[in-house]
Amino acid sequence: MENSQREAYVRQAQSIVETRSSPTLNAAVAELQRGIGGLLGATPPLRRDLSDGAILIGTPASSRVIAGIGLKLDGLGSDGFLIRSVNLSGNRVTVIAANDEVGVLYGTFAFLRQLQTHRLAETLNIRDVPASRLRMLDHWDNLDRTVERGYSGFSLWDWQKLPRWRDPRYTDYARANASIGINATVLTNVNADAQVLTPLYLAKVAALADVFRPYGIRVFLTARFSAPLELGGLKTADPVDPKVRAWWRAKSDEIYRIIPDFGGFLVKANSEGQPGPQDYARTHADGANMLAEALQPHGGTVIWRAFVYAAKPGEDRAKQAFDEFRPLDGSFRPNVMLQVKNGPIDFQPREPFHPLFGAMPRTPVVLEAQITKEYLGFATHLAFLGTMWEEVLKADTCRPKCGTPVADTIAGMAGVSNVGTDRNWTGSQFDQANWYAFGRLAWDHGLPAREAAEEWVRMTWGNDPKVVEPIVGMMMGSRQAVVNYMTPLGLHHLMATGHHYGPGPWVNNLERADWNPTYFHKAAKDGIGFDRTKSGSDAVAQYSPRVAGCFSNRRCVPDDYLLWFHHVGWDERMRSGRSLWGELAFRYDDGVSRVQEMRRTWRALQGEIDAERFNEVDAFLGIQEAEARWWRDASLAYFSNVSGRQLPEGVQPPAHSLGYYEALTFPNVPGH
Amino acid sequence: MENSQREAYVRQAQSIVETRSSPTLNAAVAELQRGIGGLLGATPPLRRDLSDGAILIGTPASSRVIAGIGLKLDGLGSDGFLIRSVNLSGNRVTVIAANDEVGVLYGTFAFLRQLQTHRLAETLNIRDVPASRLRMLDHWDNLDRTVERGYSGFSLWDWQKLPRWRDPRYTDYARANASIGINATVLTNVNADAQVLTPLYLAKVAALADVFRPYGIRVFLTARFSAPLELGGLKTADPVDPKVRAWWRAKSDEIYRIIPDFGGFLVKANSEGQPGPQDYARTHADGANMLAEALQPHGGTVIWRAFVYAAKPGEDRAKQAFDEFRPLDGSFRPNVMLQVKNGPIDFQPREPFHPLFGAMPRTPVVLEAQITKEYLGFATHLAFLGTMWEEVLKADTCRPKCGTPVADTIAGMAGVSNVGTDRNWTGSQFDQANWYAFGRLAWDHGLPAREAAEEWVRMTWGNDPKVVEPIVGMMMGSRQAVVNYMTPLGLHHLMATGHHYGPGPWVNNLERADWNPTYFHKAAKDGIGFDRTKSGSDAVAQYSPRVAGCFSNRRCVPDDYLLWFHHVGWDERMRSGRSLWGELAFRYDDGVSRVQEMRRTWRALQGEIDAERFNEVDAFLGIQEAEARWWRDASLAYFSNVSGRQLPEGVQPPAHSLGYYEALTFPNVPGH
Repeated sequence: MENSQREAYVRQAQSIVETRSSPTLNAAVAELQRGIGGLLGATPPLRRDLSDGAILIGTPASSRVIAGIGLKLDGLGSDGFLIRSVNLSGNRVTVIAANDEVGVLYGTFAFLRQLQTHRLAETLNIRDVPASRLRMLDHWDNLDRTVERGYSGFSLWDWQKLPRWRDPRYTDYARANASIGINATVLTNVNADAQVLTPLYLAKVAALADVFRPYGIRVFLTARFSAPLELGGLKTADPVDPKVRAWWRAKSDEIYRIIPDFGGFLVKANSEGQPGPQDYARTHADGANMLAEALQPHGGTVIWRAFVYAAKPGEDRAKQAFDEFRPLDGSFRPNVMLQVKNGPIDFQPREPFHPLFGAMPRTPVVLEAQITKEYLGFATHLAFLGTMWEEVLKADTCRPKCGTPVADTIAGMAGVSNVGTDRNWTGSQFDQANWYAFGRLAWDHGLPAREAAEEWVRMTWGNDPKVVEPIVGMMMGSRQAVVNYMTPLGLHHLMATGHHYGPGPWVNNLERADWNPTYFHKAAKDGIGFDRTKSGSDAVAQYSPRVAGCFSNRRCVPDDYLLWFHHVGWDERMRSGRSLWGELAFRYDDGVSRVQEMRRTWRALQGEIDAERFNEVDAFLGIQEAEARWWRDASLAYFSNVSGRQLPEGVQPPAHSLGYYEALTFPNVPGH
Repeated sequence: MENSQREAYVRQAQSIVETRSSPTLNAAVAELQRGIGGLLGATPPLRRDLSDGAILIGTPASSRVIAGIGLKLDGLGSDGFLIRSVNLSGNRVTVIAANDEVGVLYGTFAFLRQLQTHRLAETLNIRDVPASRLRMLDHWDNLDRTVERGYSGFSLWDWQKLPRWRDPRYTDYARANASIGINATVLTNVNADAQVLTPLYLAKVAALADVFRPYGIRVFLTARFSAPLELGGLKTADPVDPKVRAWWRAKSDEIYRIIPDFGGFLVKANSEGQPGPQDYARTHADGANMLAEALQPHGGTVIWRAFVYAAKPGEDRAKQAFDEFRPLDGSFRPNVMLQVKNGPIDFQPREPFHPLFGAMPRTPVVLEAQITKEYLGFATHLAFLGTMWEEVLKADTCRPKCGTPVADTIAGMAGVSNVGTDRNWTGSQFDQANWYAFGRLAWDHGLPAREAAEEWVRMTWGNDPKVVEPIVGMMMGSRQAVVNYMTPLGLHHLMATGHHYGPGPWVNNLERADWNPTYFHKAAKDGIGFDRTKSGSDAVAQYSPRVAGCFSNRRCVPDDYLLWFHHVGWDERMRSGRSLWGELAFRYDDGVSRVQEMRRTWRALQGEIDAERFNEVDAFLGIQEAEARWWRDASLAYFSNVSGRQLPEGVQPPAHSLGYYEALTFPNVPGH
C-alpha cells in the first residue's frame, strides 16, 4: 500500500466505538482491531465516545447515537447492514449499523474487505442485504472424523475431546464463515449416523454451537430417519406412527434444551441406501412433515434433500428427483425446505441446471453446490468453482416466465464443505477461493464470479496488479479446463468407480445401470451422447417449454450441453466446423493446454509470491497437468476404440494403451 | 535471557564455517542459523574462513582444519560427535566435529540445546556417543491415514499427494527427529498392508526417504508376511519355498533400486491374526532369516517383533514371547534384530521388565516402547513417560550377572510414535515431551528422566525457574498418578474392550480368555492378583533366579508389582500397615489427588505461559481429572462388589452405581 493511501485509511480508523458489550459486538470489535492493526499497523483503541475518525458500530438497540441519526434500516432484515460516513458533532465517523448484531458483524467484515482490497472509499455509503436467508455449509463429516469426499485431511470436529476442549480452530472456522456471510452449518454427513443424536454427542454439539453462536452460525445435524429404531428401541420409524412422532418430538425438545438456537435437521432419505419414509410406503412429504412438526415449536427447520435415484429402475436417473418431488409441491409444512443439487445428476464438472428450480413455487428451495471437488480433481487441481455457480444462478428457468434465473427461485444455498484439518483448511491454497466464493455468492447471487475471484486474490495474494491479473485469469479459465480434460461437450459421470479418482469411461459392470459411465455417455459405433429429447428419455420435458425447446433443438442447444441431451454421430459437423470426433479430441487437448498455460502463468509469478505457497501451488499444478494428461489420454484411447476412429491429425496419441489405463487401480484414495 | 549472558553467547556464535557443501552439512548450517538467529536475535553468517567466535563444523573429510587439529574422533562411530572450544591462529573457535556428517548434525543440535537451555559453557568440551545404533520410531499408520492407537489426528503421510508433493512438514518431522538423535522410521503399521510394497507406493516411500536422508533417517517398512500371495500371485508364503524366497529377493532388489539406503523390514508375524511362518509350520527364525537373506546384499535389516500370544491357549499370556523366542537365540542371521516390548503384556501403565531382556545374548534385541498413550489416557492425560522408560532401562536383569540393567542388554530402542497431523504434532502440548524423552533416552540410556524433562521444559516453556521447577515436578509425578488411578499395585489390563478408553475391570465375555480384564486381575471373594509364582503360572521362572527369587517373595516383591505376581487376600497387611483393600482404595484416591495437584500447579502458572497453550493444558487437565475420577469410581465400585467389602472410612463413594459404569459405551473412539 502506498503511504498516502495508508494514511488516508488510518484517518478513517482512529478508534472504535461500541456502546454495549455483547458476544457478537465484541467479536466485531475484535475483528476490527485485529484486521486494521494487521493491515495498517495501527490498532484502533476501543472508546466510549465519538471522535474524529471513529468507527461506530451497533444497532438501534445497542447505541442511542445509531438510533438517533435517522439511518434507513428498514428492509435490511436481520442480516443486512449499512456502512455510512457521517458527520456527528463535527467528527467524521464511519457508522456500521444493522437491525441485528449479526448484521453489524457482517458489515464489519465488509468494511475490512474494502480495506484489504484497497477499495475503501473516502466517503462510504454501502447498503447490503443478503439475497437468501439460508447460507449454509454441509459437512459430510463422519463421527470417526473421516470425511466423505473430503480432500483436506479429516474432520475439524474433534469429538473425542469435546465438549471440554474447544479447539481455537472452531472459533477461526466461525470467523471465516461469518466473514463471507455463512450463517448455518450442518456438522454431520448426510449418510447419517444416529449416534450424533445421543446425549453423549449432543453435549459435544452444544459446545460447538456455543462457539459458533456469537458469529451468527446456527448448527444443524443430519437426522437418520431410522433413529427411532436404532436409539429409541422402537419397532418402526414409520412417520405416521404415534410413537415415532413422539420420539422425534422428545428428541427435538431434548436438543433445544441444550441448544436453544438449534437450526434443525438435514435429511437424506430413500437415496443410496439411506432409510426413509418410503420404507413404510409414505411419501417424502410425510417424512419431512413429521420432523417439521417436532421442530416447529422451537423454530427449527427441516431441510430435505431432493437427491434421490432409487424410485423406478430403468428410468433416466436425471429425471428421478423431479418425478418424485414435483408432485409434492405444496404439501410440505412451512418449516420444510427442499435442497436441490445444481444439476440433475451429481455435481459433475458441468451440468445443465436442475429442472426442479422454478418448478416448486410453493416450496422454499435450497440450491446445493459442492465446494469439495469430488468430480473436479480433488484438492490438487486448480478449479475455481465461482464460474460454475454463476452459470447455474444465472440460468433462465423460464418459470413462471422467461427472465427468471435460478437465483430468483431459491431461498438459500448449501455448499458441501471442503474444510478439514489441513493447515490450509481446504487441502490447497486455491480451494480456499471456493469456500470464499461460495459464501459470497450465497450472500449475493448476482455477484460476478470474476469479482469474487478478484476479492479473494487481493486478500490472499496481494493487491499488486502484477499478481492480481494473472491469478484471476488462471482462476476464471480453470473450471473450463477441467471440463475439457474430463468431460467435454456435455459428457458426464465418466470417472472411476467409488473413489472417483481418474477416468473410467469403460466401466460397464456395476450392479446398477446408472452407476456405469457407459450408461451416461452411450458411446457406440454410431455416435456418442445421451438422447434426453422426446426420441430418448425425454428428460428435457421436465424443463419449461421454452427451455426444453432449446435443449431439444440441435441448433439451439449449447455445445456445452450437447452430449447431455443428444446422441450425436461421430462425423456430424459442429459449430466449429470440426466433426464431433474432431471436436472431442480438440477439447481434450485444449483441457491439457489450459493447465500447461496455468503452469506457465504461475511460474512467471516466482518471486512475487512467498516461496512456501509458490512451491505448493507449483507442485499441485504439476499433479494437475499429469492427471489432465491421464484423463485426456485414457478417454481418447477409449473413445477412439469405441468409435473405431483414428485420432485426428495433429492430436498427440495417448502415452499408453487403453488396457494400461483400464488396469490402473488406486487403493486408499481419500474421501471414499 | 539476561543481556550479559546473551552477549557472551553472541560472542561464541559470530559466524559459521562449513568448508564443503553437502545436504547434511547444509542442514546443520541452516539449523545453526535459524536456531541462533531465533534465540539470540543475530543470525551468524556462513563464512569460508575462520575468525573469532566462529563455529566450525565438519568431518575430517569435509574440512582440512578439522582433519589437522588432532581431535580424538576414534570411538565416536558414525553418530557420535565432539564439541570443543579451541584456539586456532588466535581465534577462539567452537568446533563441532564427527566422523560422519550426521554426527556433525547431531552435534549441532546438541550445541543448540545447550544454548536454548541457557547452559552453554564458555569453554566447551563435549563428547557424546549414542548408546545404541538403532533409534527408531514405529508408526502404526495405515495407508488410509488412520493411525492405530493414534490420538494426534491422522497420519502425516499424505499418500495421495506423494510423490509429487513433498509437504514441508516431512522436513520438519525429520528435523525434530534428528534433533533428538532418532535415525530410523517405520512408516507403516505392524498390522501391515501389502499394498505399500507395490510400485505405486514405493515411489511415494522413496520421496519420503529423499526428504529424510539429509537428516540421517533411514526408512523402514512393515512387510506383510503373506505379500507373496497378495501381490505376487504365489500359492504360498512358506519361507522355505524357493519361489517365495525369490519373490522377496526381487522385491528387495526393486526397493533398493529406488531407495539405496532403505533400512529394512519390521515384521509382526503370527500374532493377533497376522500371517507368519507358523502358518507353514516354520519357526519365527525361518521367517526372519528368509527376509534377512533378501535384504542382506543391500545392507538391510529385519526387525522381528517378539509380541506374540497365540501359541498355547491356556498358557499365561505373559509367558508366551519368552517361551517362543528364547529357544531361538543363536538361530537368527546377523542382520535380524528382535524387537521386545518393555514388559511382557502390552504397554500397561506399569509392568515389570520383559524376561527376554538379557535372555537372548546371541541376538540383537531392540526395546519397544509405546510413546502414544494407548493405555495411559490418550493425548489428554498428562503422563510423562520418561520415568517409565528410565525404570525399565535401569531394571537389573541379573543376566549374565547382577548389575546388568536392561540398558546393557539392548542394541536399540523403537518407540511407537505419537506423531500425527495435529498442529501440535502429538495431540497435546505435553505429549511432545514423550517424543522428546524417547529420543533422548534412546540416545543415552543413562540420561535421568528428570534431566530429559528439564531439557524439554526449558526449550518448550522457558528457562525461568518459576516455570521450570513446577512443570518438571508435574511431569515427574504424572505417570505414577496414572498408574494409581488406573491400575495400582501391579494390576494391569483393566481397560474397556477394543478402544481401550476408560475402565472395564468387569469385562469377562471376550472370545479369548486373555483378552478379558478378569483374566488379569483374578479378583474374587478371597482376594485379587495373578499368581505368577511357582504355585501359579510360574511366569516368574522366566527371569534370572535372583530376580525370580525376589519377585516370588512377598517380602521382597515391590508393592508396584505385587498383584502382577501374587494373588493376595483382601485383608492381608501391606507395608503401609493398611489392608490390601485399604491400600487399593488409598491408591485409587491418591491417583485422583495427584491430578488435582497438577491442576493447581498449572493454574498457579497463569500469566507465566502464553494464553493459548495455558488454556489448552488447563482444559486437558480438566478432562484428565474427570477421567481419573471415572477410573477410580468405576474400579472401586467393581472391586467393592467383588470383594464384598465396603469402602474404607474416609474414601469417597463412587459417583454412580457399578451398573452405570458397566453400561457406558463409546462409539468412534480414535485410534481403534
